[in-house]
Amino acid sequence: MSKIITMLTDFGESDGYVASMKGVVLVIDPSATLVDITHQIRPQDVMAAAFVIDTAYSYFPKGTIHVVVVDPGVGSNRSALLVCVPDYCFVAPDNGVLTNVVSRWLPTVGPPFLSVVETEDKRSLHRVELPHGSPISIYRLTDERYFLRAVSQTFHGRDIFAPVAAHVSRGIPPEDIGERINHIHLFSLPVPQSNGDLITAEVIHIDRFGNMITNLLPPEIAGEITTVAVAGHVISGLSKSYLDGGDLLAIIGSSGRLEIAARNGSAAAVLGLGVGAKVEVRVQRK
Amino acid sequence: MSKIITMLTDFGESDGYVASMKGVVLVIDPSATLVDITHQIRPQDVMAAAFVIDTAYSYFPKGTIHVVVVDPGVGSNRSALLVCVPDYCFVAPDNGVLTNVVSRWLPTVGPPFLSVVETEDKRSLHRVELPHGSPISIYRLTDERYFLRAVSQTFHGRDIFAPVAAHVSRGIPPEDIGERINHIHLFSLPVPQSNGDLITAEVIHIDRFGNMITNLLPPEIAGEITTVAVAGHVISGLSKSYLDGGDLLAIIGSSGRLEIAARNGSAAAVLGLGVGAKVEVRVQRK
Amino acid sequence: MSKIITMLTDFGESDGYVASMKGVVLVIDPSATLVDITHQIRPQDVMAAAFVIDTAYSYFPKGTIHVVVVDPGVGSNRSALLVCVPDYCFVAPDNGVLTNVVSRWLPTVGPPFLSVVETEDKRSLHRVELPHGSPISIYRLTDERYFLRAVSQTFHGRDIFAPVAAHVSRGIPPEDIGERINHIHLFSLPVPQSNGDLITAEVIHIDRFGNMITNLLPPEIAGEITTVAVAGHVISGLSKSYLDGGDLLAIIGSSGRLEIAARNGSAAAVLGLGVGAKVEVRVQRK
Repeated sequence: MSKIITMLTDFGESDGYVASMKGVVLVIDPSATLVDITHQIRPQDVMAAAFVIDTAYSYFPKGTIHVVVVDPGVGSNRSALLVCVPDYCFVAPDNGVLTNVVSRWLPTVGPPFLSVVETEDKRSLHRVELPHGSPISIYRLTDERYFLRAVSQTFHGRDIFAPVAAHVSRGIPPEDIGERINHIHLFSLPVPQSNGDLITAEVIHIDRFGNMITNLLPPEIAGEITTVAVAGHVISGLSKSYLDGGDLLAIIGSSGRLEIAARNGSAAAVLGLGVGAKVEVRVQRK
Repeated sequence: MSKIITMLTDFGESDGYVASMKGVVLVIDPSATLVDITHQIRPQDVMAAAFVIDTAYSYFPKGTIHVVVVDPGVGSNRSALLVCVPDYCFVAPDNGVLTNVVSRWLPTVGPPFLSVVETEDKRSLHRVELPHGSPISIYRLTDERYFLRAVSQTFHGRDIFAPVAAHVSRGIPPEDIGERINHIHLFSLPVPQSNGDLITAEVIHIDRFGNMITNLLPPEIAGEITTVAVAGHVISGLSKSYLDGGDLLAIIGSSGRLEIAARNGSAAAVLGLGVGAKVEVRVQRK
Repeated sequence: MSKIITMLTDFGESDGYVASMKGVVLVIDPSATLVDITHQIRPQDVMAAAFVIDTAYSYFPKGTIHVVVVDPGVGSNRSALLVCVPDYCFVAPDNGVLTNVVSRWLPTVGPPFLSVVETEDKRSLHRVELPHGSPISIYRLTDERYFLRAVSQTFHGRDIFAPVAAHVSRGIPPEDIGERINHIHLFSLPVPQSNGDLITAEVIHIDRFGNMITNLLPPEIAGEITTVAVAGHVISGLSKSYLDGGDLLAIIGSSGRLEIAARNGSAAAVLGLGVGAKVEVRVQRK
């Protein structure tokens, strides 16, 4: 049965890099269906890639294999991994790029918003051991039989990740392809801070419309949002569409998170803010 | 028989939005072939989308389903539509984005260049009733059985338009999917103005090369073009290639329309003009 | 058996041009699998296209047909070609865009780095006759039965190259499609200059990361690289990864060529250099 392989990289679309990866897949598994997630991740922006793959992966058919290659450490001693969660497998470097996906399948730590404890340095990686009975399985890619014959120093997307995905696609069991291990490196994800009626959220992604997506998942709030304050602007309540509300509005976006948007414009540009900006949310507790 | 589903949006390619739509299609109809038209429409530029889909849709195999989602009114009370013209169906919001396509199948009004009467405000939408015996059929999408289970407020591309396209692709008849209606909202399209030997045309699209595409379809002129004037430049006659002529040239482009082009450069940049610019065409009447 | 057709153009992705080409292919050969190489070649940059197709084409399955349309001379008297090298065919204008690919199959001329002699004007085209027994076959596309019915002046990608590729894909033999000829127009490719221990290489491509890719293929050097000098910076030895070395580093990239890279940044931006920049390489002869 034909499988789907998706690709997410920071390779852009002006060189032949992504195409080479696709060619490699089609040589190994001619029946694979290829779908791009994006190749426009800012170079080396591992955290943006971790966010984007998490918003898209679960909309694909079960069995889809996701290739995620934002890999500034290519050729260094970082590991290459095959990671399987229920229904999906991922091929990626062990550099935190699967943080958001894997966190969904880890036991919750701390407040009920997100799964991983926050630390000082957001970019520092933690070695996370899988708990007993975890639904996640992780394999380190070391078997050169599943790589291209000549592996370059600088392009493991083509030489390791694409061919491994294609071998999984054509039915080679993960345990034959890699060595089973029990840990992975993840970033800390920022967690909204709660203090009485006030929740301090954080912008974790700016999309192409300039919508500012926060880390706050309102269904997890035991209450109703009354105001949202950002950069001195106070927004009353939530809008139901991008045309409903003032020039600046707060809305529950397509990933279920609280977003700040601008009517027919870019909220990020209007406010001059980016990832990491704080958003203060007042809640009427039930 | 496997069908083709194309997608045209203003979602860009840096987020996971388009990929989510593709995943949704492949869950419902794993045999669908997906083709991108473009996702680089400027955010909310419904008129550009209306132009681009019209230049491409008819080159696809009969039966192709085109998903056209430039939808600033998502979540508002604008309708979601399935529109079928001979050989092709379209899934799109009812916001004018199908104006150019649908106008091809409406009775001609006014001069024989284009089908819709011009009004003062180019961006105002008109409710157009289909005439009796029209080859167009329009369905309002209201049946939630053909949507994703949870429909977000902000992303009907993923939650309504993509799944509906996939259900059409796998063979559900349009009349089962939506409620048949008899009207659609369209923009006015600018019509070339004729005054003796002088035709005043208008630039309706700038392509990636900076070619300025006008609304003038020369086969519809009963005469031969002698000069083309734009921004004080007068071009004699028509060129046969982009290398034939001076630095600035007039040529019949690939959609059959009169274009202004610059030899090895961007006419729009050279002239500092954009959509809406006037072009004066002198004709030798036969 | 289903074939793969790739496309490389300078059409960008904001218009309907590429999509029209894909539609045309799918009408003629519904079983073809379409893969994009890139459509982001800078407008009219034939040499960049010649480089990029060469880095990607051979990673595809044997029998893949590559459509390469960067064609500023569309509509002029340049020929349209079908060119077959061992395992792959190419459909392209005869304007040098296949220089890098075809040069691989020509007898080596001059130093053993690249195949074509350098001339003063890098952009001048040479008419190259195929030697007796060449593994390359070239066909001029003149048979209108394999074109779209109406061929425009400005868009042979849609009207000639795409349909011809689809006819090859569905099994029409090349000799039925075109007229066999024995010559092609190629650029001169810059050749590294060797002078004792010093090799002067040249930057031939900047990739999306700002890596500066040179024309030097180190396996062809009879010695070991000791220093690499560019714009007054001297780099000692070669790095094994983009994280190994100083802020500026020299590394053998994924196409086997010497590259200048910047740690977590763009070497081209840091150095303010582009294609054509000189790189001085000192070698310890064995």
